[in-house]
Amino acid sequence: MSATLDPVAGAGSGAPAPTIASTGLTCPVPVATHAHVVLGHGSGGKLSARLFAERFWPRFGNPILGQQADAALLEVAAGTLAMSTDTFVVRPLEFPGGNIGDLAVNGTVNDLAMMGAEPRWLTCGFVLEEGLPLEVLDRVLEAMAAAARATGVTIVAGDTKVVERGKGDGIFINTTGIGMRRAGWAPAPDRIRPGDVVIASGPIGRHGTAILAARDDLGLVTTVTSDTAALWPLVDALHGACGDAVRALRDPTRGGVASTTNELAKSSGVGFRLDEASVPVPPDVTAACEMLGLDPMYVANEGVLVAVVAPEAAAAALAALRSHPLGAQAARIGAAIADHPGMVTMRTHVGGTRVVDMLPGDQLPRIC
Amino acid sequence: MSATLDPVAGAGSGAPAPTIASTGLTCPVPVATHAHVVLGHGSGGKLSARLFAERFWPRFGNPILGQQADAALLEVAAGTLAMSTDTFVVRPLEFPGGNIGDLAVNGTVNDLAMMGAEPRWLTCGFVLEEGLPLEVLDRVLEAMAAAARATGVTIVAGDTKVVERGKGDGIFINTTGIGMRRAGWAPAPDRIRPGDVVIASGPIGRHGTAILAARDDLGLVTTVTSDTAALWPLVDALHGACGDAVRALRDPTRGGVASTTNELAKSSGVGFRLDEASVPVPPDVTAACEMLGLDPMYVANEGVLVAVVAPEAAAAALAALRSHPLGAQAARIGAAIADHPGMVTMRTHVGGTRVVDMLPGDQLPRIC
Repeated sequence: MSATLDPVAGAGSGAPAPTIASTGLTCPVPVATHAHVVLGHGSGGKLSARLFAERFWPRFGNPILGQQADAALLEVAAGTLAMSTDTFVVRPLEFPGGNIGDLAVNGTVNDLAMMGAEPRWLTCGFVLEEGLPLEVLDRVLEAMAAAARATGVTIVAGDTKVVERGKGDGIFINTTGIGMRRAGWAPAPDRIRPGDVVIASGPIGRHGTAILAARDDLGLVTTVTSDTAALWPLVDALHGACGDAVRALRDPTRGGVASTTNELAKSSGVGFRLDEASVPVPPDVTAACEMLGLDPMYVANEGVLVAVVAPEAAAAALAALRSHPLGAQAARIGAAIADHPGMVTMRTHVGGTRVVDMLPGDQLPRIC
Repeated sequence: MSATLDPVAGAGSGAPAPTIASTGLTCPVPVATHAHVVLGHGSGGKLSARLFAERFWPRFGNPILGQQADAALLEVAAGTLAMSTDTFVVRPLEFPGGNIGDLAVNGTVNDLAMMGAEPRWLTCGFVLEEGLPLEVLDRVLEAMAAAARATGVTIVAGDTKVVERGKGDGIFINTTGIGMRRAGWAPAPDRIRPGDVVIASGPIGRHGTAILAARDDLGLVTTVTSDTAALWPLVDALHGACGDAVRALRDPTRGGVASTTNELAKSSGVGFRLDEASVPVPPDVTAACEMLGLDPMYVANEGVLVAVVAPEAAAAALAALRSHPLGAQAARIGAAIADHPGMVTMRTHVGGTRVVDMLPGDQLPRIC
């Protein structure tokens, strides 16, 4: 954010014009008291500076962000960084269990965590639509700040643009994160071997179901909430308990557990056999998915990880996950096998076996 | 980009349905041959994978991007990183001298360069609007790839989302970059001293003028083109010639040279006195700005830097800049002074002196 902290805004609005002594001006000047985002908030001028000073800085403020230069300066030790970017366009902006703000922080820090990297620094880029109520922006920023605190990541830089009404959709947020990889641990699909155990850290299908149910046009009433959460604490616990025996990690976001296990199978060259009865699906997710015609295996999660661990470490991995509230329902859901390399099959509830394919197309647009 | 490289697309379109042997399927399947962006391109499924494989990978491909994991892994030595983010919403997407693609790469790498950091790695996040012609996307990606090559930065990760028609505006691009700061050099405003020389690396006012002239509704005919360019080569030359005598650098983007010099004056606590006759403004910019009612001092630049250098290094700095085509018209435009700290004044063409204030509001929306 190259915005300065100068809290003086002089651009016009329809609001009354109080005199503010702090400006040093001696006659009444129009002070913007907008309730909604206006184009000037993205202009890089005084309204931008005021937006930053009044809404971003109080929530995100820290010494690095306070450098207020063209770029943030970060001191690093020699090692391996992980870097990930994601743009969030979720609709609606607020949904049961979260909003676009915590989703944007958790989504990117989770990508770092899946590489065995402790999230350290985050940037955020906002595209706001003219007319967005500032109280909505406030709630989103509040959620971002809370999510960043929860996972120990520092927001070091940002940027805000405003587009005309009808050229955006409320708020889009890009987050880009950097993490520092743990020395001596390189979780990756190519380390998966037949016999390894596949674990899900918690109940699946919540995020995508909650989003779809929250869309006005469906009118579906359900208790399902998004699972949006930072996964680094679970990764940290897993690594602490099992070390290098944690072969690979992946968060089953878009495309769900089905697509994630397919990606792992294709990258590793082993097959996967899942057991449908062992996959933790909450009853309200099952019920909502039946009404919506969805398969929970393909529904996005935002607070679940899939871990592939060496068989001798499986018990310790489950215990480590279950020691954390987020992992209380962790379950062994299948195994890597030598058969049908690159393919995922599942033993179904009725005892048959079916192929679990990649997500074929556009199941749920704008769920993240 | 977590998209896989699987180039098989099976989602429907109105196109004919050739059989493709590589799928292993034995009957004709509909293969998407879209000419426009569809929602499925952002779904994370097979259409997303195809978009990546056919359009992003051939242009951006490199071993780090090829890791195809949740995050890119980057080996770093101990030192100081610079990290910057910017989201680009420029309208129109294509304009004389460039498009949103090279603008997005140059904009962010220039922010790193202004901190004395050599640009190394870049991520990009796209928000595409349903219906965008893929040929426009192709030209934008081509320009990004060329700009990245020109400045030696590697695109290491990316993300693509698609929003419904009328919920975006063609293409928005976030770029986030990391650079490695040169050891022993920390250009910053607080190093500016009275007597230092203020240099502009080239003619000002081009980018903002070109964008405004390119907007359909104005119908202004001009030869002005955007100056979008990567500034690292100039910074490298300056540092090579003058070392630590380069006190501070800033690229005068939104708000132009007027706002940038104000920011430097406020941050450094010195005053600035500029000389209007020395500021390089091309004749076509002057003419267009007169018609548009703009002051070139406030117009955005995307390929110009303002350097503040110690007086004894000024000649070497100008020579170094002029040795590069981008800096051929570099000029000394003013000096830091002990008078009126935090304020910028300018000796005008007619011999008077005026205060050069910050950009007061929203001069040119969506110029970057």
